[in-house]
Amino acid sequence: MPLLNALDTLIEALKRLPGVGQKSAQRMAYHLLQHDRTAMPRLADALTAASEGIRHCERCHTFSEAPICGVCADTERDGRLLCVVETPADQAALERTGSYRGYYFVLLGRLSPLDGVSTREIGAAELLVRASEAGVGEVILATSFTAEGEATAHVLAEALRVRGIKSTRLARGVPVGSELEYVDLGTIAHALTDRR
Amino acid sequence: MPLLNALDTLIEALKRLPGVGQKSAQRMAYHLLQHDRTAMPRLADALTAASEGIRHCERCHTFSEAPICGVCADTERDGRLLCVVETPADQAALERTGSYRGYYFVLLGRLSPLDGVSTREIGAAELLVRASEAGVGEVILATSFTAEGEATAHVLAEALRVRGIKSTRLARGVPVGSELEYVDLGTIAHALTDRR
Repeated sequence: MPLLNALDTLIEALKRLPGVGQKSAQRMAYHLLQHDRTAMPRLADALTAASEGIRHCERCHTFSEAPICGVCADTERDGRLLCVVETPADQAALERTGSYRGYYFVLLGRLSPLDGVSTREIGAAELLVRASEAGVGEVILATSFTAEGEATAHVLAEALRVRGIKSTRLARGVPVGSELEYVDLGTIAHALTDRR
Repeated sequence: MPLLNALDTLIEALKRLPGVGQKSAQRMAYHLLQHDRTAMPRLADALTAASEGIRHCERCHTFSEAPICGVCADTERDGRLLCVVETPADQAALERTGSYRGYYFVLLGRLSPLDGVSTREIGAAELLVRASEAGVGEVILATSFTAEGEATAHVLAEALRVRGIKSTRLARGVPVGSELEYVDLGTIAHALTDRR
């Protein structure tokens, strides 16, 4: 075989990235070695720094280099609102809208008993403690509108209701910019029911 | 913004990989941080080792950790055959067939004047020196059957012919396992012309 040890090792390591198989990993390795040598130490350093430096925020569980993340440390935000999202990527999407000024709680997953993800893994107990803090008036459940995301929202809403905490869910409806003809029927039915 | 410095840096570095955009890079970074922390130092080490250790074989230009690669150093091979390929990946594919026992010369590219890839970049001069060595009886031009690969093969074949060195090209024809109905017409025309 003409492949060598360092190259094989690199290809194997690249295959650990999500969505990267043997062919993509090979293409990445050859590309880096042949056309972009400077990217290699840069990526290596970024991986090391992220691996060693990034922990979870003690308050909202998102990725953070400090014990408390920037959002949780920001006292200018609206303490009455707590938004529950599945991932830091979802949180970033909400932040980019610029239309939410409350705090967050990141589940880092969604309930999925078959995959061994129970309420413990998504930090439901910590969420309930956080939501019970003085000043929190409303918990916005912004989990995905998939079967698992809906189940997660349902379970959390029930637990919050029992504790007398108000929870809401993101509105379901027709996406901005879409033509009704091409929107799926479930979405149209929801938009009809929730009309205002 | 809830994103932090180490995370942003990692996402930017991942975007340098071919075929990886903002969304994929984010997904990769979140996946590594959340589900596969052990892969991060492993990939970092593999990148560093490859970046520092992998050079080009002095004889055939493929990637190699030693000055002369394993294939070129193998004296058991058939010195009469020299196979010219575009990339180490092409060489690996030929090796996996198990039906070639000669040596290789890796161009690390193909002629593409618009991209600034001339005969100098693909090491044509070194190839001619290598092909002129005593004992080399046939140069097999195994560049791709694309416009650029064909042009590369044509230019090299001419240069070899002038020096009195025999060159051949991989056979064009119907791929194994394919039904004639679905094979493109150019391929069928070639298969007809080259029938045996």
